[in-house]
Amino acid sequence: MSKVVRFHRVGGPEVLQFDDIDVPAPQSNEIQIKVKAIGINRAEIMYRTGQYVIEPQFPAKLGYEAAGDVLSMGSGVSGFSTGDRVSVIPAFSFAEYGMYGEVVNVPAHAVVKVPDSVTYEEAAATWMMFTTAYGALINMGGLAEGDAVLLGAATSSIGLAAIQIANMVKAIPIALTNSVAKMDSLRAAGASHVFLADAPDLVERVMEITGGKGARIAFDPVGGPNARNLMQALSYEGIFYQYGALDSRDLAVPVMDILSKHFTVRGYELFEITKDSRKIEDAKTFITHGLATKALRPAIDRVFSFDQIVDAHRYMEAGSQVGKIIVKL
Amino acid sequence: MSKVVRFHRVGGPEVLQFDDIDVPAPQSNEIQIKVKAIGINRAEIMYRTGQYVIEPQFPAKLGYEAAGDVLSMGSGVSGFSTGDRVSVIPAFSFAEYGMYGEVVNVPAHAVVKVPDSVTYEEAAATWMMFTTAYGALINMGGLAEGDAVLLGAATSSIGLAAIQIANMVKAIPIALTNSVAKMDSLRAAGASHVFLADAPDLVERVMEITGGKGARIAFDPVGGPNARNLMQALSYEGIFYQYGALDSRDLAVPVMDILSKHFTVRGYELFEITKDSRKIEDAKTFITHGLATKALRPAIDRVFSFDQIVDAHRYMEAGSQVGKIIVKL
Repeated sequence: MSKVVRFHRVGGPEVLQFDDIDVPAPQSNEIQIKVKAIGINRAEIMYRTGQYVIEPQFPAKLGYEAAGDVLSMGSGVSGFSTGDRVSVIPAFSFAEYGMYGEVVNVPAHAVVKVPDSVTYEEAAATWMMFTTAYGALINMGGLAEGDAVLLGAATSSIGLAAIQIANMVKAIPIALTNSVAKMDSLRAAGASHVFLADAPDLVERVMEITGGKGARIAFDPVGGPNARNLMQALSYEGIFYQYGALDSRDLAVPVMDILSKHFTVRGYELFEITKDSRKIEDAKTFITHGLATKALRPAIDRVFSFDQIVDAHRYMEAGSQVGKIIVKL
Repeated sequence: MSKVVRFHRVGGPEVLQFDDIDVPAPQSNEIQIKVKAIGINRAEIMYRTGQYVIEPQFPAKLGYEAAGDVLSMGSGVSGFSTGDRVSVIPAFSFAEYGMYGEVVNVPAHAVVKVPDSVTYEEAAATWMMFTTAYGALINMGGLAEGDAVLLGAATSSIGLAAIQIANMVKAIPIALTNSVAKMDSLRAAGASHVFLADAPDLVERVMEITGGKGARIAFDPVGGPNARNLMQALSYEGIFYQYGALDSRDLAVPVMDILSKHFTVRGYELFEITKDSRKIEDAKTFITHGLATKALRPAIDRVFSFDQIVDAHRYMEAGSQVGKIIVKL
């Protein structure tokens, strides 16, 4: 028997419950992992509350991010051995897999080995944040030296990852937040500039920074009416990637700006990268290189124990974190 | 002396005035034309009222579309002779050129010969409507056989051109209008389906038509809050081209739809095609072929005389036309 966290109805953090189940042996192309650390993700909150892009089927498992030790492998798996320290890339659906458990099965294409120098907590924090930011900024957006990039909700783990990735390619990360209290930590995290997302002079300031060109990319999980403020700060033919729904209201797109600058607004999900075998390998190469050179360092805000999983969700909902929330087993 | 129409301050149709000027001889790579017909365009209304993407410098000339006879040529112009019947592609800025006049200069790259079988009125009506629709639907969007395309404000000349182009490539034109009275004329113009743009069951109906896939492209000059209705009817990875600002309010983008379908919203202007020498030649080839086979037939709503130019603008603003408004000289 193994403890897994599931929910049997949508609702607040309290619907998460510990169920004792027999985890089946890993099937073909699956790896079974003894979990040591779990990363908490906003997608899990949305899924738990019934507001995610897929609907939960009960009992619903969840969890995109984990690190641990290989227990066993199904047929067709190569390159791994029992006892290997590994972490998990979110390259699957909650309909099939969930990482919130003592023992879980994972598709082999989503498993990466972890160097001895990296802790389980760091390993669990790595892949969601860096792969999500890498996908939009580098793979799709082609962010390059000298380009300015606007980062909404920059104190999120993905926002912090985006700051590091922008610096890694010598771009100019402009971090946005709704909290004056978080501005210093964004400067400390490597942001070239930090502004309030709804600052009335945001456009003017971004134009100053970029010599009148504007930001080539915006990467924002917020959206809503304030999206127009970011869009007006874009460059000619700039791109606005929407990757979350922190504001559930419609994005507001200023029509004369989209007409005169021909900018693009596009919805983006991590799965565009992780479901493509070529793109996922490119992501692993880029991120592994960044970790090795210390250009990329997963930012961890706080570590909870497994029996505090409900508290970990509450803490994420409260929204005061800067970086990743981890649950340790 | 030649009569040209200009305005000396922004305002209603009445600010248009006839000025007698000496039109200079055509300079290098310019052609001078004796104008026989002018096409009226909504961009000219926006420019006259100070709401266009560029600001008028007074006295401001205007006019994107015309047909007439070649009077003379500047140095470097080849392939044209005095007396040639020609029409004009909107491949210039009002800051430099304007077609509202008895005699005008035009950059040679914007001039196309007119076959004898085509009237001046038809020739003046051709290039704005077909090039605009061709650019988004074919050059950029790659509309192909079996694709559904949503056409906002479909009774506009560009909307009617888009219906013809969609049919030419065996796509499925779904015409949208705000007017019940115009629905029959859209069916007669070749639309496969006609709906009110704000129909509450638009999404459901488009899904029925497309076997649940949705429309691959939306091509809309309206925008505003109702844009979300069109966006929700898009397919996975669909594209929404915004090419006008009939509604000056922000476009509303439904966040869960852009996230789950990864659709794109992009501002589009004709000049993306006409400023690129390769794209403009591709457009001429496609449209000339369509005209020759009668797949494309410019739709003319009404013809005014030159001294009725103010009435022609008023008539466009009233919005009851179906097709192009032409002024004949």
